[in-house]
Amino acid sequence: MGNVKFYPWGKEGTFEKGTRIIDAAEELGIDIESPCGKEGLCGKCKVVVEKGYDKLSNMAGSEENLLSEKEIKKGYRLSCHAEIEGEPIEIKVPSESWRKGQEVLTSGQELEFEKNPAVQKHHLQISEPSLDDPLADYERVKKFLNQYYQVSGDQIDEKVQKDLPSLLREGRDSKKGIWDVTATLWKDREILDIEPEWNKNRYGMAVDIGTTTLAGYLLDLETGDTEAVSSIVNPQISFGEDLMTRISYIESHDNGREKMQNKIIEGVNELVEKARKEANVEKEQIYSMVLVGNTAMHHFFLGFDSQYLPRSPFPPARQSSVKVKAREMGIEINPSGYIYWLPVNAGWVGADNVAVMLTTRIYDQSETSLVIDIGTNGEIAVGNENGVLATSAAAGPAFEGAEIKYGMRAQDGSIENVEIDPETLEPIYETIGEDLPEGICGSGIIDAAAEMVKSGIVNRDGSFSKEVREYARVKKSENGVWEYVIAWKDEAAVDNDITVSQKDIREIQKAKGAIQAASRVLMERLGVEDIDNVQLAGAFGNYIDKESAMTIGIYPYCELDKVEPIGNAAGTGSKLALMSVEKMKEAEKIPEKVKFLEIAGTEEFRENYMDALYFPHKQLDLYPDVKEKID
Amino acid sequence: MGNVKFYPWGKEGTFEKGTRIIDAAEELGIDIESPCGKEGLCGKCKVVVEKGYDKLSNMAGSEENLLSEKEIKKGYRLSCHAEIEGEPIEIKVPSESWRKGQEVLTSGQELEFEKNPAVQKHHLQISEPSLDDPLADYERVKKFLNQYYQVSGDQIDEKVQKDLPSLLREGRDSKKGIWDVTATLWKDREILDIEPEWNKNRYGMAVDIGTTTLAGYLLDLETGDTEAVSSIVNPQISFGEDLMTRISYIESHDNGREKMQNKIIEGVNELVEKARKEANVEKEQIYSMVLVGNTAMHHFFLGFDSQYLPRSPFPPARQSSVKVKAREMGIEINPSGYIYWLPVNAGWVGADNVAVMLTTRIYDQSETSLVIDIGTNGEIAVGNENGVLATSAAAGPAFEGAEIKYGMRAQDGSIENVEIDPETLEPIYETIGEDLPEGICGSGIIDAAAEMVKSGIVNRDGSFSKEVREYARVKKSENGVWEYVIAWKDEAAVDNDITVSQKDIREIQKAKGAIQAASRVLMERLGVEDIDNVQLAGAFGNYIDKESAMTIGIYPYCELDKVEPIGNAAGTGSKLALMSVEKMKEAEKIPEKVKFLEIAGTEEFRENYMDALYFPHKQLDLYPDVKEKID
Ligand code: FES
Ligand code: FES
Repeated sequence: MGNVKFYPWGKEGTFEKGTRIIDAAEELGIDIESPCGKEGLCGKCKVVVEKGYDKLSNMAGSEENLLSEKEIKKGYRLSCHAEIEGEPIEIKVPSESWRKGQEVLTSGQELEFEKNPAVQKHHLQISEPSLDDPLADYERVKKFLNQYYQVSGDQIDEKVQKDLPSLLREGRDSKKGIWDVTATLWKDREILDIEPEWNKNRYGMAVDIGTTTLAGYLLDLETGDTEAVSSIVNPQISFGEDLMTRISYIESHDNGREKMQNKIIEGVNELVEKARKEANVEKEQIYSMVLVGNTAMHHFFLGFDSQYLPRSPFPPARQSSVKVKAREMGIEINPSGYIYWLPVNAGWVGADNVAVMLTTRIYDQSETSLVIDIGTNGEIAVGNENGVLATSAAAGPAFEGAEIKYGMRAQDGSIENVEIDPETLEPIYETIGEDLPEGICGSGIIDAAAEMVKSGIVNRDGSFSKEVREYARVKKSENGVWEYVIAWKDEAAVDNDITVSQKDIREIQKAKGAIQAASRVLMERLGVEDIDNVQLAGAFGNYIDKESAMTIGIYPYCELDKVEPIGNAAGTGSKLALMSVEKMKEAEKIPEKVKFLEIAGTEEFRENYMDALYFPHKQLDLYPDVKEKID
Repeated sequence: MGNVKFYPWGKEGTFEKGTRIIDAAEELGIDIESPCGKEGLCGKCKVVVEKGYDKLSNMAGSEENLLSEKEIKKGYRLSCHAEIEGEPIEIKVPSESWRKGQEVLTSGQELEFEKNPAVQKHHLQISEPSLDDPLADYERVKKFLNQYYQVSGDQIDEKVQKDLPSLLREGRDSKKGIWDVTATLWKDREILDIEPEWNKNRYGMAVDIGTTTLAGYLLDLETGDTEAVSSIVNPQISFGEDLMTRISYIESHDNGREKMQNKIIEGVNELVEKARKEANVEKEQIYSMVLVGNTAMHHFFLGFDSQYLPRSPFPPARQSSVKVKAREMGIEINPSGYIYWLPVNAGWVGADNVAVMLTTRIYDQSETSLVIDIGTNGEIAVGNENGVLATSAAAGPAFEGAEIKYGMRAQDGSIENVEIDPETLEPIYETIGEDLPEGICGSGIIDAAAEMVKSGIVNRDGSFSKEVREYARVKKSENGVWEYVIAWKDEAAVDNDITVSQKDIREIQKAKGAIQAASRVLMERLGVEDIDNVQLAGAFGNYIDKESAMTIGIYPYCELDKVEPIGNAAGTGSKLALMSVEKMKEAEKIPEKVKFLEIAGTEEFRENYMDALYFPHKQLDLYPDVKEKID
């Protein structure tokens, strides 16, 4: 008998001598990967022996083959071979050996969830019908599924039903008198496919439909691995850059709705094509697609009437999730497969935000979180397990480098961070690719604004200080607007000084003011005084300097190490739903848990906005750390 | 206070003076028709006062207007006007005043069932969304349905969902700030239609797809009334008269399956068109269609692979009912409506037989019934509440007048009944339309055979008796076959004698032998010695003389007054399912309750068949009444 403890769970138990580590773990409810069937062939069942290495059986040949020298040195064993011979033993199961889905957020946080995708495959070996047992083909399959896999199979795709007699007999094994086939099921209920013999391949696509970009992730539904990532420009751009233009295109053109829908379907098909070619996956093997996107994209894709969407009170045609057959949508995956849109929250808070919520799960935590997804519209959610409120704020495109004189997208040559010497007012900056500077991208602009405040170039109300007018870097432009020179013409790749002007500062104030004010309105409504953590979703969150963002007051105050970028949380949410029916179900409840608040035009918002225009806020006391630096 | 008893239920209760009969009935759970809203306008709420006529209020003017003199004499009153003033009172509610579905079988039997069709309409008056109540359109409708009608509405047709925003706002009443619309639901679950204002129209089609004929019934789903009946020749006939030819057409032609399917869909659309033009009903108002037919028709219509159907063990592709959207099938009713096929039982026992079972409900009765649906294939079921067995017997077309020398379909000029004087062997016959005779139809053939047996012209083994050769009516044909002359050439509309030959008798023996033998095999398997009643389904049952049929032994012995024609029981069954979800559900269970037995080629069948070739059976004792007549 030997006592073995498993980390990171800390679970322990006592086992007979000779018990394999993998079996001991299983008894404690810990599932270790073992695709080869514990045969010492796959090498996936690795564990690290933290204590009691000598209390285990000797290393087997297959372990020596499958483990690297480095791993052996570190104490790795294959849990399907190492047997318990004494005690105490302590085993760490590294996360890559856990049998479940994992999603890693940019911040390194790991999301844990059971891998249980809606699409499952089962191996069937069904006796052929006879005069004594003349059950119909479909009922025969269903009976087998009930008996051997305890799943209902009480629906079947119409196309599969039509061809069922031949599909089953293609897997006929006349020697055994059986049909040897693979059945693919959706949520244990509907038969989506019948293939001859056993074929375990099953894939799914998670798709994030942005106004400007479509991103697709091709996942192996068996392992949860991302096999390919593809992205293209949203082809609807030909009907207008922004949503409003596209909605009015629909209203002013014959069959506008169909045209808009066909365009996006084409785009998604291109996305699928790219991804599956890269991963070398047949389209028939892709059985599901989970989509997220804002409400307009949702309506465009599904062909919903969108004319009331931009009009107060912004009612969407539907909130709940939508499930449609791929062939009915013209999506080129397995025609019997399903297209699944996560629910939308409210008019302008879409399925993408539901996906972000699904990733962050702030409605399930005692800490109060603020989640910001910054784009032209900033989507904002605040709350904890007692309630979550969400809204959207028209932040404008300043943080994307638009509306800023020398603003540009983040790319080679853009200034991405800036420091200003408070004494000399001389800047130090870095450009992406270490090229000569051409302009300033979003994170550079935030840095510049923060440094200009800290060094006293601009006042907290956003006006250029009169006291720094003597410095060479502070000058008036041709049209008489004050500006601060970050890079002189002769050090730039362009034929002018690269500056941040009074007008640019005003744009930044408006953008950050809108986001902070919206956050504060939600906090007030929830009766919450402080935020415990800030989660920055989207690419933007990865690049900005959180301290600079705090200095100018993009978000309400919070300890700096509790501000975290969480990457493409919308994309992550769509992958979670793709890999887990439980997550799908959870998403379904998010619109109830996360209440949408329309704040645009309210007095409450206006007042908060006026105060939030200041750097970082009219009441400096609200930002203790920032106060220190500015004073 | 007054005690009132209601018949035929025998329910009674005590009511306050002044209570209207209709309200008293309602309190006891008896619903009386009152389409005018109990206003004395429709005259549908008639009841008969069996006792206590003087204990009721005086006759009102509207009663005198709406009741005929004869009715008044018989004690009729309008239950919405007659008030209780004393006791005791006894009221009979005639069946035409019951508020429920009714189907009358040919025999006059009435089927009673709750009118509760899958398609229901509800009147909605929903508050428009506002900033304080920004619920999405679909969820708003669903919430109203939940609250006011306690129905879930948790699905919505895709097409309706797409246009939902406009559909709802077409019913907008801006003064009241509401959407005033009608929602049509399928099984309280799925929203099939949204129309402006209140529109109670809803219709359904019951369709019986025969190999040669399609019959359609257009029903008002509100009242259960049949608004129109249409019938056409099955256009698939162009691909072959019989099923086998059609199945091989499919196998030997490119896209044979689609062609066959399109043909039948076209036919059904023609059927719908004819019926709805006659009844002046819009196609959008037809929300459902229930179909019955044999298994091959079922497969052809649904586009199922039928190649294994004619091969032992005759496995159908599916047994359970099938529900498909009308637009997906190309059926021209409301595109969001449903096409519903009743389940099939087994290979050659189809949805039509399930419909017959649904009509007869022999699986729910203590008496043992034999149900025979005679066609080229005779479908036969025997059983009671302890179990039912069904099979099909290849009876051949003799009873349809085919394979009989002077046989013809039942039409003007066909001999439909025959009597033969046992002394003189002179016949008396009648023709349809009282025309000069041209040939003999099925019922005439059965009569002739029975009379020939009774009068000793043919022996019980089917051979022509040597003892009657002297009679002028008994002669040899040119090819030396004995025959009996029913009509001499000079009294016929054709240029020959109309006879029944030895060969004809052999055909009749084979046909009736097959049916009787199949019935006996089922009886043996069930361990049943006697049949309590025989139900003859199909047009055939209406025309044949049950005594003659008994004399020749088409069915096993049973008291003559327990033999009943039940008309087009398959059509009736499809109407029942159309009008009642409970009946749909009941149909679903029939394939479990009615076990199919394949008997063709079994020794058991062969033995029974040899004995059943005799008139009425080798053992005359089995038919006591017949024995008397023959001896
Ligand atoms: S389970 Fe495959 S090597 Fe251990
Ligand atoms: S209910 Fe219409 S007349 Fe009585």
